[in-house]
Amino acid sequence: MLEDELRRIAKIVGSNITSSVSGDGSPLYRAALHLPLQGGKRMRPFLVAKACEAVGGTVEGAVPAATAIELLHNFTLVHDDIMDNDLLRRGVPTVHTLWGLPLGILAGDLLFAEAFEVMLSSKGEPERRRRAASILARAMIVLSEGQYMDMSFESRVDVSEVEYLDMVYRKTGALFQAAGELGGVMGGGDERSIASLGAYGKNLGVGFQIFDDYLGMTSSEEVLGKSVGNDIREGKKTLIVIKTLQTPAGELLLSSLGKKSASDTEIETLVKSIKAEGVLDYVRGRASSYVNAAKAAVSNLSESTARAQLIELAEYAVSRSK
Amino acid sequence: MLEDELRRIAKIVGSNITSSVSGDGSPLYRAALHLPLQGGKRMRPFLVAKACEAVGGTVEGAVPAATAIELLHNFTLVHDDIMDNDLLRRGVPTVHTLWGLPLGILAGDLLFAEAFEVMLSSKGEPERRRRAASILARAMIVLSEGQYMDMSFESRVDVSEVEYLDMVYRKTGALFQAAGELGGVMGGGDERSIASLGAYGKNLGVGFQIFDDYLGMTSSEEVLGKSVGNDIREGKKTLIVIKTLQTPAGELLLSSLGKKSASDTEIETLVKSIKAEGVLDYVRGRASSYVNAAKAAVSNLSESTARAQLIELAEYAVSRSK
Repeated sequence: MLEDELRRIAKIVGSNITSSVSGDGSPLYRAALHLPLQGGKRMRPFLVAKACEAVGGTVEGAVPAATAIELLHNFTLVHDDIMDNDLLRRGVPTVHTLWGLPLGILAGDLLFAEAFEVMLSSKGEPERRRRAASILARAMIVLSEGQYMDMSFESRVDVSEVEYLDMVYRKTGALFQAAGELGGVMGGGDERSIASLGAYGKNLGVGFQIFDDYLGMTSSEEVLGKSVGNDIREGKKTLIVIKTLQTPAGELLLSSLGKKSASDTEIETLVKSIKAEGVLDYVRGRASSYVNAAKAAVSNLSESTARAQLIELAEYAVSRSK
Repeated sequence: MLEDELRRIAKIVGSNITSSVSGDGSPLYRAALHLPLQGGKRMRPFLVAKACEAVGGTVEGAVPAATAIELLHNFTLVHDDIMDNDLLRRGVPTVHTLWGLPLGILAGDLLFAEAFEVMLSSKGEPERRRRAASILARAMIVLSEGQYMDMSFESRVDVSEVEYLDMVYRKTGALFQAAGELGGVMGGGDERSIASLGAYGKNLGVGFQIFDDYLGMTSSEEVLGKSVGNDIREGKKTLIVIKTLQTPAGELLLSSLGKKSASDTEIETLVKSIKAEGVLDYVRGRASSYVNAAKAAVSNLSESTARAQLIELAEYAVSRSK
């Protein structure tokens, strides 16, 4: 049921991306559309659409905002892949890998501009559109700060849980929060509902990201589409890493952290000792807490199919296998 | 007189950049503010302010839009410097040279977001702010296309004058056009005045850029702050290059075009033969035509100090020495 609805919204947004970012078929536009047309979960557009419905709006009225947020999300992925020098994304080569660095930067910039164009040129009440675009601009500032924090963590081993959670809020939670608020604004919700939907998004986003890190250590390569323990090899300061460094298993972790050549067996042994320290349970528990906070945040909205779907989405975020 | 007013507006916009893009003093914010706080001519903000006054608005009412356009202009410079691998800008090291590639990209992205934040969160009539931000988003799409064209010209020797002018319109004219329109919109001008101010900006921008290329071949290193003929060494397809390739001097030009090691004497000899073919006069004439079109575009606006200053700015664009 939820997956059908996710697919339905994803399809609407996908079509709107194609028709909005029409371009001229040049390498610039092909590079820009490479990632957005690959698909992905489209969770943010779904959140915009359902938040809009939850306050009495329609999916149709949410489409420009849903499209804008998906374009912005893809913009951040294109540039993050350059900054992190990642070669693969969603199982296919990244934009700068295919088109080179200059066009990778430019394709990202174009997606950024197209997102605001879609949001601002759409039909509808001017003040709602202005406010929605303003929410997006603010979110992009916070996301830049999050990306900077993430990069600056790479060279540190003393990152605290509080710092990590602040980074995850900025890098992931802020755009989910914006998605909730956008839906509330475009659906004509009152201030209290808009705030509730923002709180839902923020907590969902943070919980989702923590659970993502958890999956990256506990799932299988076949399911993930990437090696288990990749975060360890890349030296990422995930919550699992931060918590493990505070346990006796920390020493073992340090010998593999950032070691690109770490073997699967090495990672397997490491995961076992991290698990034995109770870190995996702790991290999954943290993800669940955030998701519960997300569910609680929408409890004051009137009952509706959309609200039920938001609650279902939250549950999916911490029960999925990939 | 004009220079005093340019300085006055530049100071107002500079202060507003500092107070709007407050940040946390982190390297991210220092990288983002590096270029905008270096100064520059601030011609685009001046255009916004004067266009606003020309339709009966105030400089104060134009400040958010003027700030936004200057931030966007600086965003494009930061990213263009990365794409072109330029080490110096306004006589100081470029952002990515000082802070590295990842932070260079991110600093640009932050400026982009801050520009829309300043524009959209400002006080004032919602529809004007929405429309102004929409004009900016559209301009940024066109600018991306212009940057792509400019990059794709590098590997070609058959770029036509028409293609070059289309590129210059996209890369430079579009943001000047947006500046004129923004001033008109924020000042509450009627549609005809907004269109006139846009046409003024568009023609001024193209004329300004053509004259810039002209100066790069005819001025002196002391005045320019960079070597005469740098465009030749970098293999840029300026109008001078395009026209020269159609003359007997084309062969001589091809032997130096894109040759980083070309000596000053080599460039001097080349400039002489380009001049002898009448190319320099032709190019200066083209710049003047655009500037005359810019002046004509504002002739239907009511007489005002601001309109007189716009005309003065147009004349300055093709009479300046740097």
